[in-house]
Amino acid sequence: MNTPLAGIIPPIVTPLKDRDTLDAEGFERLVEHEIAGGVHGLFILGTTGEGPGLGYRLRREVIDRACRTANGRLPVLVGITDTAFVESVAIARHAASAGADALVAAPPYYMPEGQPELLEYLQHLVPELPLPLYLYNMPMMTKVSFAPETVKQAMDIAGIAGIKDSSGDMDYFRSVCSIALERRPDWSLLMGSESLLAPAVACGAHGGVCGGANVAPRVFVDLYEAAVSRDADRIRDAEARAEALSRIYRVGSHPSTGIKGIKCALSLLGVCDDFMAEPFRRFRAPEREKVARILSELGLRAAGQV
Amino acid sequence: MNTPLAGIIPPIVTPLKDRDTLDAEGFERLVEHEIAGGVHGLFILGTTGEGPGLGYRLRREVIDRACRTANGRLPVLVGITDTAFVESVAIARHAASAGADALVAAPPYYMPEGQPELLEYLQHLVPELPLPLYLYNMPMMTKVSFAPETVKQAMDIAGIAGIKDSSGDMDYFRSVCSIALERRPDWSLLMGSESLLAPAVACGAHGGVCGGANVAPRVFVDLYEAAVSRDADRIRDAEARAEALSRIYRVGSHPSTGIKGIKCALSLLGVCDDFMAEPFRRFRAPEREKVARILSELGLRAAGQV
Amino acid sequence: MNTPLAGIIPPIVTPLKDRDTLDAEGFERLVEHEIAGGVHGLFILGTTGEGPGLGYRLRREVIDRACRTANGRLPVLVGITDTAFVESVAIARHAASAGADALVAAPPYYMPEGQPELLEYLQHLVPELPLPLYLYNMPMMTKVSFAPETVKQAMDIAGIAGIKDSSGDMDYFRSVCSIALERRPDWSLLMGSESLLAPAVACGAHGGVCGGANVAPRVFVDLYEAAVSRDADRIRDAEARAEALSRIYRVGSHPSTGIKGIKCALSLLGVCDDFMAEPFRRFRAPEREKVARILSELGLRAAGQV
Amino acid sequence: MNTPLAGIIPPIVTPLKDRDTLDAEGFERLVEHEIAGGVHGLFILGTTGEGPGLGYRLRREVIDRACRTANGRLPVLVGITDTAFVESVAIARHAASAGADALVAAPPYYMPEGQPELLEYLQHLVPELPLPLYLYNMPMMTKVSFAPETVKQAMDIAGIAGIKDSSGDMDYFRSVCSIALERRPDWSLLMGSESLLAPAVACGAHGGVCGGANVAPRVFVDLYEAAVSRDADRIRDAEARAEALSRIYRVGSHPSTGIKGIKCALSLLGVCDDFMAEPFRRFRAPEREKVARILSELGLRAAGQV
Repeated sequence: MNTPLAGIIPPIVTPLKDRDTLDAEGFERLVEHEIAGGVHGLFILGTTGEGPGLGYRLRREVIDRACRTANGRLPVLVGITDTAFVESVAIARHAASAGADALVAAPPYYMPEGQPELLEYLQHLVPELPLPLYLYNMPMMTKVSFAPETVKQAMDIAGIAGIKDSSGDMDYFRSVCSIALERRPDWSLLMGSESLLAPAVACGAHGGVCGGANVAPRVFVDLYEAAVSRDADRIRDAEARAEALSRIYRVGSHPSTGIKGIKCALSLLGVCDDFMAEPFRRFRAPEREKVARILSELGLRAAGQV
Repeated sequence: MNTPLAGIIPPIVTPLKDRDTLDAEGFERLVEHEIAGGVHGLFILGTTGEGPGLGYRLRREVIDRACRTANGRLPVLVGITDTAFVESVAIARHAASAGADALVAAPPYYMPEGQPELLEYLQHLVPELPLPLYLYNMPMMTKVSFAPETVKQAMDIAGIAGIKDSSGDMDYFRSVCSIALERRPDWSLLMGSESLLAPAVACGAHGGVCGGANVAPRVFVDLYEAAVSRDADRIRDAEARAEALSRIYRVGSHPSTGIKGIKCALSLLGVCDDFMAEPFRRFRAPEREKVARILSELGLRAAGQV
Repeated sequence: MNTPLAGIIPPIVTPLKDRDTLDAEGFERLVEHEIAGGVHGLFILGTTGEGPGLGYRLRREVIDRACRTANGRLPVLVGITDTAFVESVAIARHAASAGADALVAAPPYYMPEGQPELLEYLQHLVPELPLPLYLYNMPMMTKVSFAPETVKQAMDIAGIAGIKDSSGDMDYFRSVCSIALERRPDWSLLMGSESLLAPAVACGAHGGVCGGANVAPRVFVDLYEAAVSRDADRIRDAEARAEALSRIYRVGSHPSTGIKGIKCALSLLGVCDDFMAEPFRRFRAPEREKVARILSELGLRAAGQV
Repeated sequence: MNTPLAGIIPPIVTPLKDRDTLDAEGFERLVEHEIAGGVHGLFILGTTGEGPGLGYRLRREVIDRACRTANGRLPVLVGITDTAFVESVAIARHAASAGADALVAAPPYYMPEGQPELLEYLQHLVPELPLPLYLYNMPMMTKVSFAPETVKQAMDIAGIAGIKDSSGDMDYFRSVCSIALERRPDWSLLMGSESLLAPAVACGAHGGVCGGANVAPRVFVDLYEAAVSRDADRIRDAEARAEALSRIYRVGSHPSTGIKGIKCALSLLGVCDDFMAEPFRRFRAPEREKVARILSELGLRAAGQV
């Protein structure tokens, strides 16, 4: 039986030069920034990676570039969430041939499904996939959750390796954990809400998919390690830093603010461009100044700066 | 100045043999069924057409087949709604080269946008399109509406030809109509909710995009003509028939029930297959029997039957 | 068998001098303003009447004053919606002793109910009531709807006289109408959304509960009569006036804007005070000016003014 | 400056014999059960106490009985949430004269307010109250939250003593904590979601308002003490017991299931009756058996039983 994937797996952004051009150098710098920060895996083409907003040619380029840069130093997980079944499978095959390690899929997100349809979807999809799949619970974007009972039944499908929960609902996560720890101890249970990482680890999670780790990977690696070793003081310190950083997500009020804040911070740190995939717009000067102030209060600055 | 597109433009379903195979003969029969019923246009790859659930190769096949079968007898509108900008443009170009007449786009539907972003999106998208565009307001699926103020500003973008509203909110539609009738009398104002077709025409709508017209095109053409000529008795008769048919949308309770009901009815009438795009499932026997009963009460039966 | 209540029944506002004091003279002027405008009934203590926001002593005063002023010239309906069963019954008894004609109740609105509980609630409540009850479907405030199937079962409870639907969902209303017209032709079917009044009458409604009739009762009486006589030109004229007036509901963006707009307009017309029940605040100068402009464009002005 | 209220303050249920009759003996047994379990305060007439569903006479009886039974052994907090301002004040005055210690108020919950109105409401209400007030954030029932910025401004109103957050949103709670710990160290910060109690204490909370403490007060007192002393093993044990108990909230699927589950468990333990305030219904046999099984797995049984 496999050991579950564990640790901090940042959902990395996709640096862009324009709506269809990867900022390839920025992307490589970002990957190195993450590895230098001690993270345990990379998740590309997720929500934070603006996966659904990128054309397919560009998604394949992101996969190729991520796998080549990671070069076996840490596992690469690839988001294949799509409203069209065959496109999910096509991206999955490309990911396998590029050397990725696993796939991640949320429910098809145009028309809301019933739970029996979500289960059948997984029963149809997983056998077509060349790599293990992580379920991705993200109701804010997909309108439906994988209900705990559906997750329980999905535990019987060979080829699923775990679940990432971004619902922000600790009761949901706890309930999925208690089922999985009993029936599928090989599953990896990943928390997608930064503010719930430590409590999630306390109830059995193996790691976290933390957007803020794009900017400050070390903070989340510290928090994860403190949570694993149950060191309450270190948890409190790391949480305070994570909380201070999280103010970049609240500079605006729309759901896209989180990604804009992360890209803006990475741009300020000299890592990569902050161009957003259509139809979103990068922060303008007032928001950019607020992000700069937050970074500065945290003592974060560009590599080249004093 | 152009005359606005008017009349009944059914959002036709995509008959499938399996998840990636068009029921091409069924599709042609469906197009002929619509034309025989007197409709004024065809809208393909919309919500009812399961557009977002189909792979791109299949979407192109649907476009080709629709244009070839329609063969200039009535205009073909093509849904290009997508979360990825470049894929919307690619489908639009294919539609133009296949001979389609217009395009239809709802907001990108993964991450919710703010209104300024929706407007900028249109300002960026429309100049890239080779055909006129209809806005598609469908908040149940896309989570955001084109606010009336955004629609008003979009009236200044050359290349937009009208709006289809499927919000079901008569106040919204009335408010958009009152702006458009003053500023863009050339825009086509299309109602997407069957039960609001007659009142919409009364307040200025040019036509309707009625899912039920897949099954019973004549009923909706009658209703439209009665509404235009303000014939209250004929409106009431046609509405009673439309209402009776609409019971097929309520055989189940999920948002996908409408499409399943339409496909099931078309299958019972011998028009085409009722296979659903992933991750949805066609009606099983109990629902199928209910649909059969509703059709029979309406006197609808397969062409080949007595 | 009774004839269903028909016509325009405005949900009248409660004019206040302060948070617990009725503007009694203003209230009487308002009732006379309505009667002079030709309305067919009065609905007090509804959503527009800020019923749930008033203390019980004040609610009883409103009931007494309304019945005394109406003095049999037209029926008075009293809202008894409450989260506490016994308080609904107590208000109902007071209404009966004051001479009111009927009661109106939405679901208890703190904790959302299941449909079986809504039905049982009606089965328990109605026998305790001394007057006929109208159901009040208002999901925006109560979080739950009376599902059509629940309404159908409620048709077997003696003592229910009809339903007022403020969901804004024409499909819902049409579906309730088609059940009621068959099973309970004595029920009164009342439309609570102004923009759907004419189509509602076309599909069987007996009248409308129109907030705008507080301000301009004649407009809605005209609209109702035109709808009954199926006079399409007159419908269009009255709808245009109603639509122009409805801009007072959109001067702000919160759900309370409608009531604030109506109270502000009545204050501008010299009918009554525009003080709002806690925790709401009347319009300040900028909104007040917008309302004044809308009234002036409609040719509405204070009785005393030229 | 006062020390903030701290510890476990159960939101106790209101045992009923019928819709308007308190199960007075059961209520006293419940209070003694809580005190024996080591809780640090009692919160009556909250959501779990079905406050809004009880008539005013009955609410006053609950207040009297609670204060008399507690008899100074622990503080009594009284829910005064109401849609009518004067009724909130009247209940508050009754609470003070009966000897209660503090009040708790959520936003008026019929018509949703804007944030400026929520702030003004507090500015008007608090000076009328004879006891300190705790804010109660409960958006699932009231539709609106006290935004962190509103809470921040409310910190300037003398007479507010803290906040209880039942949003289930750890980001919200963390953000309110970080403001309060700086500006109002005397405020009590109370977590209303059981599954977030330990992480809340870790980020500064003073205690928890845990529904499950009705049934098993000792479990939550243990959890609280473990969280305060940062004892990770004891936290994990107590959380596991709390989680096992929480299955009684998921025996059904409606929001009222939690209260039904608690009342059912208390009835099975011989503490009090499980009659629900209108319009809700107690669990029937199948759900009751599930609750019995959960209690038995936890080793909980009636006092009189072996």
